[in-house]
Amino acid sequence: MNKTYQLELVDNYQPGYSLAQGFYKSDEIYQKEINNIFLENWMLAGHASQIPEHGDFFLFEFDKESVIITRTKEGKIKAFLNVCRHRGSLICLEKKGNVRAFTCPYHAWSYNLDGELLAARLMNDDFDKTANGLHQAHVECIGGLIFISLAKDPLSLKSMQDDLKDTFDLFGFDRMKLVQQKSYPINANWKLATENYQECYHCSPSHKEYSKIHALAMSPSRLERYREAYLASKTNTIRTTPVDLYFDLANEGDEGYQYGRDPLLEGMKSGTNGGKAASMFLGNVTDYDGGSSEFMVGPVSFFLIYNDHMVGYRFLPLSVDTCVCDVFWFVHEDAEDGQDYNLDQLTWLWDVTTQADEEIIVNNQKGVDSHFYSPGKLSEMEDFQQNFLNWYLKALKK
Amino acid sequence: MNKTYQLELVDNYQPGYSLAQGFYKSDEIYQKEINNIFLENWMLAGHASQIPEHGDFFLFEFDKESVIITRTKEGKIKAFLNVCRHRGSLICLEKKGNVRAFTCPYHAWSYNLDGELLAARLMNDDFDKTANGLHQAHVECIGGLIFISLAKDPLSLKSMQDDLKDTFDLFGFDRMKLVQQKSYPINANWKLATENYQECYHCSPSHKEYSKIHALAMSPSRLERYREAYLASKTNTIRTTPVDLYFDLANEGDEGYQYGRDPLLEGMKSGTNGGKAASMFLGNVTDYDGGSSEFMVGPVSFFLIYNDHMVGYRFLPLSVDTCVCDVFWFVHEDAEDGQDYNLDQLTWLWDVTTQADEEIIVNNQKGVDSHFYSPGKLSEMEDFQQNFLNWYLKALKK
Amino acid sequence: MNKTYQLELVDNYQPGYSLAQGFYKSDEIYQKEINNIFLENWMLAGHASQIPEHGDFFLFEFDKESVIITRTKEGKIKAFLNVCRHRGSLICLEKKGNVRAFTCPYHAWSYNLDGELLAARLMNDDFDKTANGLHQAHVECIGGLIFISLAKDPLSLKSMQDDLKDTFDLFGFDRMKLVQQKSYPINANWKLATENYQECYHCSPSHKEYSKIHALAMSPSRLERYREAYLASKTNTIRTTPVDLYFDLANEGDEGYQYGRDPLLEGMKSGTNGGKAASMFLGNVTDYDGGSSEFMVGPVSFFLIYNDHMVGYRFLPLSVDTCVCDVFWFVHEDAEDGQDYNLDQLTWLWDVTTQADEEIIVNNQKGVDSHFYSPGKLSEMEDFQQNFLNWYLKALKK
Repeated sequence: MNKTYQLELVDNYQPGYSLAQGFYKSDEIYQKEINNIFLENWMLAGHASQIPEHGDFFLFEFDKESVIITRTKEGKIKAFLNVCRHRGSLICLEKKGNVRAFTCPYHAWSYNLDGELLAARLMNDDFDKTANGLHQAHVECIGGLIFISLAKDPLSLKSMQDDLKDTFDLFGFDRMKLVQQKSYPINANWKLATENYQECYHCSPSHKEYSKIHALAMSPSRLERYREAYLASKTNTIRTTPVDLYFDLANEGDEGYQYGRDPLLEGMKSGTNGGKAASMFLGNVTDYDGGSSEFMVGPVSFFLIYNDHMVGYRFLPLSVDTCVCDVFWFVHEDAEDGQDYNLDQLTWLWDVTTQADEEIIVNNQKGVDSHFYSPGKLSEMEDFQQNFLNWYLKALKK
Repeated sequence: MNKTYQLELVDNYQPGYSLAQGFYKSDEIYQKEINNIFLENWMLAGHASQIPEHGDFFLFEFDKESVIITRTKEGKIKAFLNVCRHRGSLICLEKKGNVRAFTCPYHAWSYNLDGELLAARLMNDDFDKTANGLHQAHVECIGGLIFISLAKDPLSLKSMQDDLKDTFDLFGFDRMKLVQQKSYPINANWKLATENYQECYHCSPSHKEYSKIHALAMSPSRLERYREAYLASKTNTIRTTPVDLYFDLANEGDEGYQYGRDPLLEGMKSGTNGGKAASMFLGNVTDYDGGSSEFMVGPVSFFLIYNDHMVGYRFLPLSVDTCVCDVFWFVHEDAEDGQDYNLDQLTWLWDVTTQADEEIIVNNQKGVDSHFYSPGKLSEMEDFQQNFLNWYLKALKK
Repeated sequence: MNKTYQLELVDNYQPGYSLAQGFYKSDEIYQKEINNIFLENWMLAGHASQIPEHGDFFLFEFDKESVIITRTKEGKIKAFLNVCRHRGSLICLEKKGNVRAFTCPYHAWSYNLDGELLAARLMNDDFDKTANGLHQAHVECIGGLIFISLAKDPLSLKSMQDDLKDTFDLFGFDRMKLVQQKSYPINANWKLATENYQECYHCSPSHKEYSKIHALAMSPSRLERYREAYLASKTNTIRTTPVDLYFDLANEGDEGYQYGRDPLLEGMKSGTNGGKAASMFLGNVTDYDGGSSEFMVGPVSFFLIYNDHMVGYRFLPLSVDTCVCDVFWFVHEDAEDGQDYNLDQLTWLWDVTTQADEEIIVNNQKGVDSHFYSPGKLSEMEDFQQNFLNWYLKALKK
């Protein structure tokens, strides 16, 4: 019996190197990724502040999927596939809105906010309405952050929630609001986009704005000295102990996650032009300590927590050769635009950085498409990416 | 030996339900459909009034095919593949026109109006011109309606022509003219478009304009009472006896067809805004009787015959995920625009309805593309669609 | 064991006829063509006058490939794949420019003008820089014309260089300059474009401008008489002896090439409107003799040498159903625009002719896509194309 194309590619992978071309071009592999990763792992869907009232909804979309995120009459957040159980039409055609019930525009089958089929006109008596509710996705919230999983048996987020509870409390994850979400479509395979996010080997040559603020752009040895100085001088209580249970390091049955805190360059307070303060302190944060935290849950959702605002990053595939990067900006729920923060200044750093990355990633895809591309040796600064690759290859084999 | 993908899909079909996703996405199935349906069945090509003079022609196009419909010197209507027998160039580049002969613009091979190769410059003596005429399609006319079949041995239309001869005469099928043809491209598989046309379960929720005029939008029981009242009150001679030899109900060797007459809502005369009269009576029709007729030939050509005008509908595939719906408006050949009818009023109902359908169908495709779509239960009002599905699945297996 | 699709198509080819549809549509065959033809044969990349200084570069692109053509510090012309050896990014993002070194914009790996890896930041000690230079393409110049081959063991150009040395000298191949390059994208398979260039059966019906100047548009018998008169009257020393070692006629191990000289129509001096002189004489040419030469190297690079300028033609695939035709205009390096030649007049004939061909070729593809297309009989005037087909089918089988 012949090995499948994808198994052969997986088995031929050489550790320490980038992936072979086929991983970035093959439709067969792309379908496997959708099934084994995007229909299995947890993904950031959005924020509770987007749906304050019951009947409020917004759509979370990737590849061929559209998921309705809504708030029920009891105030619970639920997620349903935007696919009518009759002949499959989309039910919600607008990207967001408020409804009393989800009524399919085609034949008027109607579902309540809990996804149950309320009415289906003129169906035979033997038709079982209770078996025809909307398909439901799993929902888990971290403070106001809404995560969903389309898996039958989703991975557990419990250890993560327990482990980082105090940190979420300190940063006031349940007292933030989303003030900006921006989509950056990228003409490249989704892995090139997320691999780009996973390593700071490219920060120094490609992101001068970032490199003036974050010490992570430095070489590992210089960063180490910088980190020691930061830890020695730090007086506040923001957690610095890292947790590295991401990708191939995750515990069996758990969704992978990571937390860490890294120094900013001297004198920098936040991720803004010149490192100036951006907004009022998050949660119970009381001062600028010259650091910022990274937090990651699942394979495609990343957060950068400054003392006065948080930035979210999410990578989603649209097709084998296109993807989208969504960037989310959060501030304290009491902060007001024009007074406590300025939206343009708040979003400047990661907007300019993401625009630069979009170009980088597209040019990476173009080169990878050449018959002459072959996997190249990764540097020490691409360690995190190596963990992603290890995990990714295992996920493909499932 | 493994079953092919399409055979497996066909065998897994559950009667009473919509089709599985693969039928709407697979290229393999699409190619099979082109071969087994569109190269086998009869399709409306256009109307004799489009080519009154010899040498007049227009193109009939779908998928990768372009067919020249023309009138010969003897006044006969013929159809030829628009493909030069030399190296395959298109011969007619304009969508319509008038020619003395069909001369390929590439190397000037020239064919007469009967499709015979007249001249091929500088070919060797052993070249047989008589074997290199244009490929011909079968043509059959119903009054002025031109139907073509690309089959080697086309299905028979004889029983249909005999059965409905009086009806065609009454409605004056040979004394109509085409006054408008409009193309509605739809980003969806052709089956979703024709299935949409086949059922009026969606009329009430989706087409308020139609539902104010046609009783077919009602529930079956209400429609039944309405139909009885219509039949009881009707005095004129327009045929009401239905004939249901369509799709899987067709006789072996015959092309499927259907005729029926259904009531309009009380006080409605025709398919216009407010149900007002649209034009002079067709053929030998003498009054408004509060009804309209449906007529269908082959799988993708449908007609709605009001007492004072006729609307034609045709669905053609362009690729696996795009199709086009063409709508044709016919009036009595003596009717004059601005006097006997007003073109905007004549075309209003089915223009607004088709535009609405275009949106419905595209959103249906989007939902069907989801991994979570599964075939749903059909209602009683989707009976006709069930006949289509039965026939369609048999056609795929050929 | 089953034959592959392409082998079956190849074996079913009937000599004397055009190719079957599959050759123009199949992705499988297209990939085989890239490997067996475009990664094996010599192609015109450009002209030395485009990169006069060291560090000057321009990109040569087709399908998924991008090749940097540059001049080293020693003045040598070299060609490198535009693919970083680290993670595969494009290195040069601009189509042309001047650099001191090739530095990848992603992670700043840097290569010198000889393609050697100079610097790769923060790589482990075991990383071997010498094994990570840019992939190199073979370069060979005919005068200023730059040809490249991406083959491991390229075909030999030696016999051609020896055979035509005097001709290249006479026409001053090393004293020309490129004054215009124009790209004509064509929505058709690359073979339809190059087959179009290979036969003049279509010249008379399709190119009235060309047919007023070149005798090649005539029927073979008339052309023969014209050629005899031309040879009898000719007094200058421009080579007229043809060499026919092209396509299937090439010697084993050699790249195919062809040279010939054909008469212009009476009174015509050059390939311009009215056949008027275009520029100063090329090389050592001393008069107008009423002829022009054809020269071809490899499968997709063609030249037309008038006494006072040269036109180059190159066909490259972009995907299975799109390609690009590049036309190059060359004059004596001392000629000045507005004085010795007028650029609009110089480029008129082959601009208008290529625009007409673009339309012809697209319409050829459309017809070939029909289910009813079948290979047609070639005429005597399509002999050259038959040689191409013989060679092409053999190349596919490798």
